[in-house]
Amino acid sequence: MIEYRNLRVAILGGGSVGAQVASLLIQHGDELAARAGAGLEVVGVAVRNLDAERSADIPKHLLTTDVESLILGADIVVELIGGIEPARTWILQALNSGADVITANKALLATHGPELFELAGQVGAQLYYEAAVGGAIPIIRPLRDSLAGDRVKRILGIVNGTTNYILDRMDTRGDSLDEALAAATALGYAEADPTADIEGFDAAQKAAILASLAFHTTVPLDLVYREGMSSITLDQVVAARKAGYVVKLLAICERLTDQNGVDGVSVRVHPALIPRDHPLAAVHGANNAVFVEAEAAGSLMFYGAGAGGVQTASAVLGDIVSAARRHVAGGPGVAESTHSDLPVLPISSVTTRYQITLTVVDQPGVLAGIASLFAEHGVSVEAVTQSVGTVSIRDGHDDAKPTATLVIVTHEATESSLALTVGALTDSPVVSSLVSVLRVEGLH
Amino acid sequence: MIEYRNLRVAILGGGSVGAQVASLLIQHGDELAARAGAGLEVVGVAVRNLDAERSADIPKHLLTTDVESLILGADIVVELIGGIEPARTWILQALNSGADVITANKALLATHGPELFELAGQVGAQLYYEAAVGGAIPIIRPLRDSLAGDRVKRILGIVNGTTNYILDRMDTRGDSLDEALAAATALGYAEADPTADIEGFDAAQKAAILASLAFHTTVPLDLVYREGMSSITLDQVVAARKAGYVVKLLAICERLTDQNGVDGVSVRVHPALIPRDHPLAAVHGANNAVFVEAEAAGSLMFYGAGAGGVQTASAVLGDIVSAARRHVAGGPGVAESTHSDLPVLPISSVTTRYQITLTVVDQPGVLAGIASLFAEHGVSVEAVTQSVGTVSIRDGHDDAKPTATLVIVTHEATESSLALTVGALTDSPVVSSLVSVLRVEGLH
Repeated sequence: MIEYRNLRVAILGGGSVGAQVASLLIQHGDELAARAGAGLEVVGVAVRNLDAERSADIPKHLLTTDVESLILGADIVVELIGGIEPARTWILQALNSGADVITANKALLATHGPELFELAGQVGAQLYYEAAVGGAIPIIRPLRDSLAGDRVKRILGIVNGTTNYILDRMDTRGDSLDEALAAATALGYAEADPTADIEGFDAAQKAAILASLAFHTTVPLDLVYREGMSSITLDQVVAARKAGYVVKLLAICERLTDQNGVDGVSVRVHPALIPRDHPLAAVHGANNAVFVEAEAAGSLMFYGAGAGGVQTASAVLGDIVSAARRHVAGGPGVAESTHSDLPVLPISSVTTRYQITLTVVDQPGVLAGIASLFAEHGVSVEAVTQSVGTVSIRDGHDDAKPTATLVIVTHEATESSLALTVGALTDSPVVSSLVSVLRVEGLH
Repeated sequence: MIEYRNLRVAILGGGSVGAQVASLLIQHGDELAARAGAGLEVVGVAVRNLDAERSADIPKHLLTTDVESLILGADIVVELIGGIEPARTWILQALNSGADVITANKALLATHGPELFELAGQVGAQLYYEAAVGGAIPIIRPLRDSLAGDRVKRILGIVNGTTNYILDRMDTRGDSLDEALAAATALGYAEADPTADIEGFDAAQKAAILASLAFHTTVPLDLVYREGMSSITLDQVVAARKAGYVVKLLAICERLTDQNGVDGVSVRVHPALIPRDHPLAAVHGANNAVFVEAEAAGSLMFYGAGAGGVQTASAVLGDIVSAARRHVAGGPGVAESTHSDLPVLPISSVTTRYQITLTVVDQPGVLAGIASLFAEHGVSVEAVTQSVGTVSIRDGHDDAKPTATLVIVTHEATESSLALTVGALTDSPVVSSLVSVLRVEGLH
């Protein structure tokens, strides 16, 4: 029997992830000690209510409400309470007391990451956060270490399981948004107030973290462009399917040179069409996946469960073993690399493709007129499909005019030229209605 | 302008990967220095022939044939020559001289890994090998670090691009094996002698590396069970498609308790059917993917380009930056964890599912007879599909008897009971021919 040095692990938070982490650390103690080269002793689990029910077994004597004493005596502090305060203060205390810190707190990292990383660098500690994005999916280490010698060009991520579950149900079962949301709520995938998921706030936090890491820069959360998916209709999803696409809520991080030659990054969250044969199109249910395009490596994808107590605990435990190995080896932590200091460019400088669905008056010359309207604004059309035969009653009169539905997919165009084009379409007398405008990603 | 400490990088090998690594290190020197916290100076590229053509630019003065001097003066040695010797000797020299070593050499790791890791541990250096499996795909770090707190149950890997390209062509274009191999050769995916790929030797080396890492044990290459794909026919691929499967050459690493209660691992390479809706089924062309099932994390998949000079260079460069960060932080490397010391169990103790295709005499009672034959050997049948109407001429006589084709999918059974069942089927008078026996993986 090998005798290991003991490392003292403090866990802040006894919720679904915290309870699993504590329980697995205790249950698999010997095995993890052998892997880490050090014993991992759970010295306490800080909770608000000592008597609350736990989703996994924690010995009663480990529960405590005295967070500050717990932090002071620990080599490794695991923050799993979420939110900004008191998580931020406690992490700062832990780093200042010389502990390595592990967190799954995406909201805190997306807003106060630079402050935390700076202190960690100053004191020579390390801040681990594999569980903050993509749950159990290893994505932080691959970006931080495996791709450290490459140049990431673009990340397309399905990083919110709730919205993927909803959109997947709409696509595969023909549910309306409301029906799919109700199903997600019933299964516990969506919270009582689903705003953070549906409106893309959760995905935006993860996008800020991924972009900072991938581009070695600091991306403030308030510069992440965000559009939710609450206006996506079943009609759009069905039409997308017919055209060979699937609608996903994507977190997109991109290196970009804008129209004035400024090098920067674009970080945005919005619904988008992706081609059915794109690897992300096969991500079903509440799963997550991060698709990375790098200069040398080409296309990579990381796929798995994006949430869940025990799944997230897996990522946290990996960080705990890594921190322990680092303690055993000695030396300071590796500082977060933010040297490239790239500006975050506004959505208006992004170029992407668009699918625009219009109903138009079905008369000779209309298509040519619409096409020239795109050309006038510098937007080049790749494909137009037309379905004739619908009849609309305009203006309440019964002078019913035959209309046609046009589905137009553009080549890459800037958001600003697209906005001007859409404005002109809306004003055009031959356009009966602008049915849908969606970005198209993942085409090459 | 920050002044960094310089680390001296020696590259052994100027082939397609070596030349790309050297060229990218020089080209992106400032950027990589900022990420690593140290300058990365290429002090030389050891080659056999100073005048050979290179696939990427290397300044002439860096080329050398004096390998031993190059190694002695280096902080980081990158071995990209492949094969066992002299690669092994040079890596041992490099570790002994205190350098960290980076290698993409799967053959060497699969056969002499323990010797190399042991020396690295003794001298406090680190051996990095992200490029040895899955080319550009980060899979070593996720298994070594991100999943260090979890228990891997099974790995299903498409780790050989050549065979995946061939099987994918057979599946999607209806090529015969020979046609698909010819196409792979023409595109440079297959070598002049494709034995190492087709017969699964390459995949077996990678399976040994993945299993050692995932199960914290040592898996000797000669205990990896290996069947190539040279006997896979277009008929089998087409029949698989009809039944909802796709044929892939898989590297399978599995925790297992055998019939006698012995805990161990099974490591094997063979063609297998996987369901069309399994994430691995969507891995097309020469791409690789590693599907990992872990106790807490659930199912994960890592996908990307499995080969190619510049793609593999991405993985090597990531290791170089990691090694440099470690040098800057100081302290010894993290030793490879092989504490669990699990036996590698023979193929006879593996349990999996099988698809057996038979033609039988079409007469009353045959199906019952075949079913009881399975039952006698303890193999439980999940599904039988029958297509009647084929007519075979038996024994050269013209007493043509109507035959039926049965496709039988079993529940999990041991290889040994399956072998007995297949023997009995072959001997059965009602079986006209045993068309195909294939393992089925990835079903739950």
